[in-house]
Amino acid sequence: MPRYKLLIEYDGAPFCGWQTQADQVTVQGVLTNAVKALSGEDVLVQGAGRTDAGVHARGQVAHVDMTREWRLDTVRDALNAHLRPHPVAVLSAERVGDDFNARTSAIRRHYFYRIVNRRPDLTFDVKYAWRVARPLDAEAMHTAAQRLVGKHDFTTFRSTECQAKSPDKTLDRLDVTRIGDEVHVFASARSFLHNQVRSMVGTLMSTGLTGPGAWTADDLTHALEARDRTACGQVAPPDGLYLMKVDY
Amino acid sequence: MPRYKLLIEYDGAPFCGWQTQADQVTVQGVLTNAVKALSGEDVLVQGAGRTDAGVHARGQVAHVDMTREWRLDTVRDALNAHLRPHPVAVLSAERVGDDFNARTSAIRRHYFYRIVNRRPDLTFDVKYAWRVARPLDAEAMHTAAQRLVGKHDFTTFRSTECQAKSPDKTLDRLDVTRIGDEVHVFASARSFLHNQVRSMVGTLMSTGLTGPGAWTADDLTHALEARDRTACGQVAPPDGLYLMKVDY
Repeated sequence: MPRYKLLIEYDGAPFCGWQTQADQVTVQGVLTNAVKALSGEDVLVQGAGRTDAGVHARGQVAHVDMTREWRLDTVRDALNAHLRPHPVAVLSAERVGDDFNARTSAIRRHYFYRIVNRRPDLTFDVKYAWRVARPLDAEAMHTAAQRLVGKHDFTTFRSTECQAKSPDKTLDRLDVTRIGDEVHVFASARSFLHNQVRSMVGTLMSTGLTGPGAWTADDLTHALEARDRTACGQVAPPDGLYLMKVDY
Repeated sequence: MPRYKLLIEYDGAPFCGWQTQADQVTVQGVLTNAVKALSGEDVLVQGAGRTDAGVHARGQVAHVDMTREWRLDTVRDALNAHLRPHPVAVLSAERVGDDFNARTSAIRRHYFYRIVNRRPDLTFDVKYAWRVARPLDAEAMHTAAQRLVGKHDFTTFRSTECQAKSPDKTLDRLDVTRIGDEVHVFASARSFLHNQVRSMVGTLMSTGLTGPGAWTADDLTHALEARDRTACGQVAPPDGLYLMKVDY
């Protein structure tokens, strides 16, 4: 049966996350419905990353099987037509072999986290960034972030609901840069634990502060080494998080 | 009486434009109400540009008089508190002399227009960009755009409701660049006629097409020289237009 790889973008704000749940509007749910509307078949669309409620994607990847050999631009356009008015778009469709699995074939995932560092409330970006009112030193955050790069037991930065068998992960990249009044965090790894990026970003934020509540890079190392969820700092809200790209 | 200059950002999507109108929610209206909540005084907030319904601002400028000499961060923070939950933010407040007028003292206005050039529907950007599905040649658009730079009678690119005395304006800059799947237009002038930027952008879009409906740069020159509103091409929707900056 032909397998299709889909490149997907969505505004996570109105969704209860990626994963299908009874009586909830989810990204996987509306995509699966769109496939059914096109092919008449009941097949679950399987994604590379199960993003939480409110988390966005610019480059989510999923695969789905359909009996018929469709033209690829027909798959894209028809799914987009059936997805309306949900803020989900299929950017491209591709034919892949049966051995391709959007989740297990992925070799690297790239996330982006957007902080707007200013005192006034957000206007355009209320659900699309995290506003931090106190001034942040992005260079200090970047320096501290390097303490987390590499292979570690990330128990401190893992949701208590995380179902991964092991807390050991290799973080390939954690970069922090400032552009005007925004602070951008880029995180790349083969895979992440549940809430890992938001837990790291929220804690890193404290390493950018001065005065009350400020963390040093050593505080971050101690939190990591504690291997204890209660040693984690603040968990950043989902609004600023974007799944940007998945490598295969 | 102390005069304050305000730097303002707003999401234009939910507003019936800048200008106060009876029974309509406008940016000027919610700002004027916020000033009244702070000072107790009924004074109209006067802006540099009367943006249309759906048009956004990253750098609108306004002035307002209040009897009391307030701390500037108090003005900013108190207005922002009173503006909630409207997507309008006062980014900064400044004391200016009585001779400062946000509209008449402005020497240059800078607008930005955002086109997303792709086939799938927009997700994040439904009200924040204009989606053009057919491929656009941004270089051809830029080349054609230079025909409009300089001093001209812009009757063709002016709303029939425009109240300016003269259709003569000097356009200082009209640049078109592509960044990935986005086409960005930058327009700068001392002042613009009503709907001028949207009329120019919509018409320029046709100079980026190939095939049916495509315009050449010469077609654009002929439209300009016709000095006739019916010679204008399509008027671009308000969603992609941003007032970025006003110079004094």
